[in-house]
Amino acid sequence: MGENDDSEIIEHHVEEEMEKKGTRSHAPSSSSFLESVTPSDREGHSGTQSSHRLLAYSDALISIIATVMILPVAHTKLEDNEKLSESVQALLTTKIAVYLMTFLIVTVAWAAHIRLFQVIVRIDDCLALLNLACMMLITFLPYTFSLMATFPEHILGILLFCGLVMVMGVIQSVIVLYAFSRPFLLNEQIQISENQAFYKHHILKVIMRVPLMCFFASIFSFIFFQLSYVLLAIVIFLPYISQCLKWCRNKAIGQVEETPDSMLFYTYLPNEPLSKDRVEAFSDGVYAIVATLLILDICEDNVPDPLVVQKKFAGSLIAALQEYGPEYLAYFGSFATVGLLWFVHHSLFLHVTKATRFMGLLNTFSLAFVGGLPLAYQLTHEFPENSRNELEAIQISCVIIFFAGIFQLAIWVVALYNEQETLHPYVRYGGREHVFMLAKLALYPCVALGTFFLTCILSKFSAPIFHLMEITVPFAFLVLRLLVRVGLALLRLIFCPDRPDPRSVVEEEDETRVPFNALVT
Amino acid sequence: MGENDDSEIIEHHVEEEMEKKGTRSHAPSSSSFLESVTPSDREGHSGTQSSHRLLAYSDALISIIATVMILPVAHTKLEDNEKLSESVQALLTTKIAVYLMTFLIVTVAWAAHIRLFQVIVRIDDCLALLNLACMMLITFLPYTFSLMATFPEHILGILLFCGLVMVMGVIQSVIVLYAFSRPFLLNEQIQISENQAFYKHHILKVIMRVPLMCFFASIFSFIFFQLSYVLLAIVIFLPYISQCLKWCRNKAIGQVEETPDSMLFYTYLPNEPLSKDRVEAFSDGVYAIVATLLILDICEDNVPDPLVVQKKFAGSLIAALQEYGPEYLAYFGSFATVGLLWFVHHSLFLHVTKATRFMGLLNTFSLAFVGGLPLAYQLTHEFPENSRNELEAIQISCVIIFFAGIFQLAIWVVALYNEQETLHPYVRYGGREHVFMLAKLALYPCVALGTFFLTCILSKFSAPIFHLMEITVPFAFLVLRLLVRVGLALLRLIFCPDRPDPRSVVEEEDETRVPFNALVT
Repeated sequence: MGENDDSEIIEHHVEEEMEKKGTRSHAPSSSSFLESVTPSDREGHSGTQSSHRLLAYSDALISIIATVMILPVAHTKLEDNEKLSESVQALLTTKIAVYLMTFLIVTVAWAAHIRLFQVIVRIDDCLALLNLACMMLITFLPYTFSLMATFPEHILGILLFCGLVMVMGVIQSVIVLYAFSRPFLLNEQIQISENQAFYKHHILKVIMRVPLMCFFASIFSFIFFQLSYVLLAIVIFLPYISQCLKWCRNKAIGQVEETPDSMLFYTYLPNEPLSKDRVEAFSDGVYAIVATLLILDICEDNVPDPLVVQKKFAGSLIAALQEYGPEYLAYFGSFATVGLLWFVHHSLFLHVTKATRFMGLLNTFSLAFVGGLPLAYQLTHEFPENSRNELEAIQISCVIIFFAGIFQLAIWVVALYNEQETLHPYVRYGGREHVFMLAKLALYPCVALGTFFLTCILSKFSAPIFHLMEITVPFAFLVLRLLVRVGLALLRLIFCPDRPDPRSVVEEEDETRVPFNALVT
Repeated sequence: MGENDDSEIIEHHVEEEMEKKGTRSHAPSSSSFLESVTPSDREGHSGTQSSHRLLAYSDALISIIATVMILPVAHTKLEDNEKLSESVQALLTTKIAVYLMTFLIVTVAWAAHIRLFQVIVRIDDCLALLNLACMMLITFLPYTFSLMATFPEHILGILLFCGLVMVMGVIQSVIVLYAFSRPFLLNEQIQISENQAFYKHHILKVIMRVPLMCFFASIFSFIFFQLSYVLLAIVIFLPYISQCLKWCRNKAIGQVEETPDSMLFYTYLPNEPLSKDRVEAFSDGVYAIVATLLILDICEDNVPDPLVVQKKFAGSLIAALQEYGPEYLAYFGSFATVGLLWFVHHSLFLHVTKATRFMGLLNTFSLAFVGGLPLAYQLTHEFPENSRNELEAIQISCVIIFFAGIFQLAIWVVALYNEQETLHPYVRYGGREHVFMLAKLALYPCVALGTFFLTCILSKFSAPIFHLMEITVPFAFLVLRLLVRVGLALLRLIFCPDRPDPRSVVEEEDETRVPFNALVT
């Protein structure tokens, strides 16, 4: 972002110093490097200049809000003597449902926010304030879900939710109207198009669809409130379901020719990919808040009381802290897991060149499971060692980690189906990093699955061992690269011994990369 | 970030297609636009390519950790009948001190992290994992402070803290050694320099200084633990104090010629500015987490129990929720305040072209007060209306908001002292946006000060009124622009009636800006 602003300032300097014509004639020579970039990338370039930080802040807020509702789940007090499976079932019915609903609806709101700010690429003070108002309303959504879950037969939760969504719809419409009255704020593609009025009406129609459904839901809630829930569920899941169906259909009967109308139903601009840097910013936010939710609890609850230390442990602080030993281990284990899941995500998206909407959907599912990790942490350190409950807690952790990992793998698999557009040459079939990327993505699902079956076979498997395992996984990543390289070298030696070792080429390439970048950027 | 990766990929394409010589000869024509950029900006350009997301994630983690310790402060239960000033004094001595200490030490660690990754501009898997290990240790720092505050006479807290810092020092040294063994990871300036070995030793020396002091502190803790605290305080505050002193001296006796040695003492590269996008990312993180800490509490604590609703309110949910009315109002008021402080920060940094270390220091102070806002929120809704305590809670809120705002203003004032380097022409003396920026930055300190004096004069001033005031401030921002414009137009009309209205020029400039950007980037 810093550089973008800098270039804006340079631009002003340049503008003052030279005539516009001379500048324009310069342009083709400098953009000749960029011929292989698609038009939408170019737009992104000119657009992220002034709205970038607003979007980053919005992403941070939305990612925190999406994961907030795991806190009531994780803070539910479990009884030692009660069977874990029962208490988990009690949890599942309400709190986890609230968490997942919140996560999904907030993600839908986030996707709408992305769409909106792919159209509006520059902002001014007024838009920034309107956006903040929108954010304030989004942060209140989780609370309405809590109300709905606690009082399912009471219509107040539904009314509040629908009210919030309708106000947000109004604010978004105002944003669109404002932006279209100042066309220099808009996407270049719309700015130069002749039928701006058509775009405006179309975008307003798309925006108002959800508030309108909420309006009907709020009216039905007075008559027959179950119907309102059905309507709300449709609002949340319709984009997901239609995405899934479309993808399945495409894979089953081959790529059908998309009519522009059907595309326009969910996006404002046809064939527009999800903004990759916003997907990354949102994911970073979720990973960061999940990693630190654990330390929030430790800092608040696990500092012993001086009086207790004096009485119970005869003033020995070390003895008092030993009581919390399992929690520290659980914290470090969970942090390592979250950190490495982030690391895998980072490695994957480093090589993704375009994020499609279906990849975004899979990413959302992966993140929803990552958000469940604090629950796993809470469960694994809460039960006495070697109890039946402890085993089940470890199994739940494994399931959560497995799904978080498998959805990451799914992103890559989906990307491979259309690898020319979505992936960097290195990780395509036969690419230099292809095997290694597969190994990286498969590591966590494999480890989780392995641990799960171990807990089924072994009757004794304690949480400390589990957390120690979690902490040792990073070393697996380092060993992985070595193993993959040795394996590939062996394969190469056996099948084609006369080809030169590609590693020496790589080293050379790396060294020439840096000065070259300076020229391109 | 998306674009940066794209350009990396383009680069590979180009590399495959054309010879290196042809490419190099192209370069001067494309970089002729960038002549006004300083060399350090150019470095930033080529550097943020692959380490950008790692740094963004680190910033997110560090900003959350910096603000974590406000939670124990805000969650301290206050008694209604107890006098607020006494309970606040009890708080001040320990928990607020822990919060401020944590915030400052985490900021020091963050500054060290910035310095390190201004030298290492590209990363690979190994560095990413080492960095995550470093992050894990940083997240544990607040806990050691809690221990120190709760058991000030016990050396365990000091030992733990020193141990963590020493391990972090070792990891950072490994990072440096690893990066220097693969020079393509380094800053271009160091990469082309001939005495890399000198740089390596110098950087290692700077890194090991703090762990070494911690090592001495941990030894002294066995002999005379008060001395350890003094040593630790020096570690934390030395960079700040030396910064302040240097700045004051420069202002008092004029700009003295800096010897390269004295600069090198705290930075690896002389005259290097703070990375502006990292300051922004860190600030965004703090603002986002502070804004949402409030809703965390509401979602967890303010959902009424169905049984209580049945018994106490005869099944009326609305009546039950009315009990929480003040909390919702307090939440919206606080969110508006945090959001607008972010907005002012965003407006300011949009026009900052280079962030000096002193500006970074002032930003840290401003953020430390922003982090205190959850405390203000907690205080203002906890006391019965029209009590003496409520008035004092509002006064504390005003003080916190005042300082958060005044430090933002200070950043701008400091930037104005060296405006040619640090500010965009628009906001320099006499610039188009100068007066408006002043008005924006001065609004919150003025409102806070005004409210503070109002509470002194009026004996009746309730928290709901205060929160309503907070919510109405955004409109002040919108009116502000109008007022400033009208005021300036009047002044222009009186003093120089023959100059043309600059607004028409502005509109034109805005419209030509977008196509032009596409060429430059």
